[in-house]
Amino acid sequence: MTDAQNPPRFPEFRVIGVTGVPEIQVGDDLPGIILAAAEGQGTPFEDGDIVIVTQKIVSKAEGALVHLADVEPSPLALTIAGEMKDPRHVEVVLRESRRIVRMERGVLITETHHGLICANSGVDASNVPGDDMLCLLPRDPNASARRIRDAIRERAGCTVAVIISDTFGRPWRVGTTDIAIGCAGIAPLKDYRGMVDRDGRTLQVSVAAVADEAAGAAELVARKTIGVPVTIVRGLPYDVSEEGADVIIREASMDLFR
Amino acid sequence: MTDAQNPPRFPEFRVIGVTGVPEIQVGDDLPGIILAAAEGQGTPFEDGDIVIVTQKIVSKAEGALVHLADVEPSPLALTIAGEMKDPRHVEVVLRESRRIVRMERGVLITETHHGLICANSGVDASNVPGDDMLCLLPRDPNASARRIRDAIRERAGCTVAVIISDTFGRPWRVGTTDIAIGCAGIAPLKDYRGMVDRDGRTLQVSVAAVADEAAGAAELVARKTIGVPVTIVRGLPYDVSEEGADVIIREASMDLFR
Repeated sequence: MTDAQNPPRFPEFRVIGVTGVPEIQVGDDLPGIILAAAEGQGTPFEDGDIVIVTQKIVSKAEGALVHLADVEPSPLALTIAGEMKDPRHVEVVLRESRRIVRMERGVLITETHHGLICANSGVDASNVPGDDMLCLLPRDPNASARRIRDAIRERAGCTVAVIISDTFGRPWRVGTTDIAIGCAGIAPLKDYRGMVDRDGRTLQVSVAAVADEAAGAAELVARKTIGVPVTIVRGLPYDVSEEGADVIIREASMDLFR
Repeated sequence: MTDAQNPPRFPEFRVIGVTGVPEIQVGDDLPGIILAAAEGQGTPFEDGDIVIVTQKIVSKAEGALVHLADVEPSPLALTIAGEMKDPRHVEVVLRESRRIVRMERGVLITETHHGLICANSGVDASNVPGDDMLCLLPRDPNASARRIRDAIRERAGCTVAVIISDTFGRPWRVGTTDIAIGCAGIAPLKDYRGMVDRDGRTLQVSVAAVADEAAGAAELVARKTIGVPVTIVRGLPYDVSEEGADVIIREASMDLFR
């Protein structure tokens, strides 16, 4: 619709849900499945796309799953679980955490090995087949993102960015938003500092977490129950970077709420 | 592109930045300006659009501004300001707050009269003309959203939802995301609880803050410095509601981080 003679008169991007992704099994060729699904619905990847993949299918393909039957709960897990929770589930949450941030009213907020702070270390039973399976976060979500990005480049010949997203709660606000736990090929933060506003005033504190905002946009089409675990954000300019999503994690020494 | 015979094969929405909004002055007819800008760039509003308006232009139009010269700092403001900050600025932050949540390392995290928890009660000098003016949050952002929504319905004959957005920091994570501080005509939360996933498992804790995610998507095109204070999210289904953005504010008794 636009070309050099007719540049767009306004900024615009599209958020496209990718349907047709089957139930993912351990060891599946996830990049191949994603490529086929995007092509199958007539929206093959293009250079510059941001491909957002929900954590759950990445973890399943990588085998980041635990059988409850294999878990022996520790005394601490038994105490925390009480009569309300499965102590084996609590045990897995504790194993995935390096620190407990809050433990109240049946809620366990932990810091994961990645440094992410979230409920239950991101350990989850929903969308996992079978009653005795738990899904963990990918061991290294940036590496997961890079593998998918590299495979798309090799097999489809196009250069995209990849974000691995997950659904997190927030202090002070009801409801979850999807955020970026892994990135490849996109700078997760956009630094507006030093830029000037319309009045020539230099912006002081203004670093936008664009990868989190893109993951949230993807959630709006992904809808947990309708099987859209992959989303394309198309037409949104971004800064290319290999720094990964860790730069979004606030250093403990700079955090007022740990 | 789609009709009853050819339903879309995949979910998709567009995020369209509205350019051409001039510098807003106190008393300006903001709905009229927004309508003209959207029409002027060839994207007039359509039924079902979500129109996202940044707080700053709403506050300016409503006159939610304070001249620093008119502010007499209290002893507390003088103490907090120390030698690093303007005590009049701190005084305005304190007046806009009903509680100080954290006060460390030059950062003042407060709870506003609306119940929002953010840095400096949302009081801000950037994008405000003149060196002696501060911009406050709108007194009642839901009412601001309703006024814009109603005016668009009356003047353009189309039914849209309106979100007033602002830029907030988060605990644990670097970088800001835009969130919804006021809403009209859209349910800010989407409740997935009770729905079943692909394996027939009932989703337990799953309420998505869709208004926050939409505001974040808008920020991606709004870009602080290029003068895009209005964004259209088009093609995204949402639940119509008059409940306003207050439902996104977590009750203090349910909050582990106040």
